Amino acid sequence: MRAEDSELTIARLIKAPPSLVWKAWSTAEHLAKWWIPAPIECQVVKLDLRPGGGFETRMREGAGEFQPHVEACFLEVVPEARLVFTTVLTEGWQPAEPWLALTAIMTLQAEGSGTRYTARVLHKNAADAQKHEEMGFHDGWGTTIAQLAALVEARQ
Amino acid sequence: MRAEDSELTIARLIKAPPSLVWKAWSTAEHLAKWWIPAPIECQVVKLDLRPGGGFETRMREGAGEFQPHVEACFLEVVPEARLVFTTVLTEGWQPAEPWLALTAIMTLQAEGSGTRYTARVLHKNAADAQKHEEMGFHDGWGTTIAQLAALVEARQ
Repeated sequence: MRAEDSELTIARLIKAPPSLVWKAWSTAEHLAKWWIPAPIECQVVKLDLRPGGGFETRMREGAGEFQPHVEACFLEVVPEARLVFTTVLTEGWQPAEPWLALTAIMTLQAEGSGTRYTARVLHKNAADAQKHEEMGFHDGWGTTIAQLAALVEARQ
Repeated sequence: MRAEDSELTIARLIKAPPSLVWKAWSTAEHLAKWWIPAPIECQVVKLDLRPGGGFETRMREGAGEFQPHVEACFLEVVPEARLVFTTVLTEGWQPAEPWLALTAIMTLQAEGSGTRYTARVLHKNAADAQKHEEMGFHDGWGTTIAQLAALVEARQ
């Protein structure tokens, strides 16, 4: 298997410095505003930003109950630079049974007065990556990153 | 699920200090001497002791070819104190498809002039833990830890 076949990547130049992009990731009330495409609501249940810390978000469409969204474990946390989580583990390195096994590697690189934001998503194999792409990876992650950009660019 | 139902634990008091036990874990030629029950041979392919680093060992019975044994990723590395790896990821946080999903948490605690060595093994669920126990977890890990003890106690 070539690594690139099991990876999906999306990147965007955000017109705000890494410090602001990091704040939008590391503050639960900010994260809830962009992490799921509107008008679906996001609830941040766990955002324990340290290796082994839990990451859990829930989602709600309309007036129903909040449903599971992401349940994961942070692997690397480098403020204003790099954030990695995986769904194959939950809080405390507990092996999990995710509906979609992935590791997401987000990097924030200063570029001029802005931030080159890149999300690289690793899957178990090429078939999983293809399934994720067909489920709308680029649309979904693209929309949330556009929401992230709109949020932090408005705060400039 | 109660956490304890999906965990298996084994512990032993080793009559050597944590520094020696750590050396037997962190040096490939030493690790190869105890990590698999004799007379099965162990080959240490990767021992990249840092978060995200690869851990790979192979085994050989008799005169055949070396076969896969463990392919995993280190999660935490605290010299002389704590070592954590998981088989649900490989080098570089790559999600994997292990034949047995587990996270192993080894702790080394000074006790008198020796080391209390504890291996706590987390599984996805109680069924996996039971399967691992029936495959001979306590015999297998017990034998390797006895080999570890014999190795480091002889070096005293």
